[in-house]
Amino acid sequence: MKLFFIRHGIAEERSPNQRDEIRKLTDVGIVKTKQVAEKLNILNLRFDLILTSPLVRAKETAEILLQAQLSPQIIETPLLAPEGILDDWLNWLVNSEYHQEDQAIALVGHEPNLSSWAEILLWGEVSYKLTLKKAGIIGIEMTQINKPKGKGKLFLYSTPKIFQN
Amino acid sequence: MKLFFIRHGIAEERSPNQRDEIRKLTDVGIVKTKQVAEKLNILNLRFDLILTSPLVRAKETAEILLQAQLSPQIIETPLLAPEGILDDWLNWLVNSEYHQEDQAIALVGHEPNLSSWAEILLWGEVSYKLTLKKAGIIGIEMTQINKPKGKGKLFLYSTPKIFQN
Repeated sequence: MKLFFIRHGIAEERSPNQRDEIRKLTDVGIVKTKQVAEKLNILNLRFDLILTSPLVRAKETAEILLQAQLSPQIIETPLLAPEGILDDWLNWLVNSEYHQEDQAIALVGHEPNLSSWAEILLWGEVSYKLTLKKAGIIGIEMTQINKPKGKGKLFLYSTPKIFQN
Repeated sequence: MKLFFIRHGIAEERSPNQRDEIRKLTDVGIVKTKQVAEKLNILNLRFDLILTSPLVRAKETAEILLQAQLSPQIIETPLLAPEGILDDWLNWLVNSEYHQEDQAIALVGHEPNLSSWAEILLWGEVSYKLTLKKAGIIGIEMTQINKPKGKGKLFLYSTPKIFQN
């Protein structure tokens, strides 16, 4: 199974007048996220499913990936919200139809969650070696889908800058 | 400064009748390495310099990168041979005209050297978390070019499979 951790694109600044959940991607964020999606397409990446956090900036990012035909579907889940917990998501996965070795799943969400989850799957613990920039991507091959922690293999890690020239 | 560690492509099998140094890329190795070079080109990666191990399979890989116009020049150096030592290469770098923050240098060579060097630059020690497949690439941003060990940031890590669809 391949997991792609993708952080949302550049969003509006936090403001005391606006709930965090409804912050949108900025115009620049939309353009840069589309550039990333286009490059992922050129690299022939395909997801069976995009899971996204319910926050607007994540949903907009997931929608851009969908429009670029990287995946046939999006599922919105609170498991990927900023307060989401890896074990809860792994429980969801095990009980889903996507718990298959040949699946490729994109998780669109937030930092520091995504890179922490990635590190736990790769190394069994959070070591703060990886970070995801906005619209950045981490690709992990899950070699053992039943006991995945610490068994993953990193096969893709890229900042959006790489994809935006 | 950006460093790109690139392992040579798929080469002829070892044979008691042939010196290791003259093993060539196979036809498949040439095709796959050209595919990687093409994708690096699409991503707009550019090197100011390709340094290569003097072994034939590395030199052929470097030549493919040059032909793809990823760099204007190749320098062959025994520092990147399988017995090369990171500190010797860092000494070379400090005394070269390429020891500048804006430089991008590709190092074409061998495992386990390249991923070990990358890990020392990233984390200060070899932790066997990264591996380079044939024609794979690791991109490191050297944030401190004078005392680089443990200060690097990983910005690109990719298996050739990603680039070969």
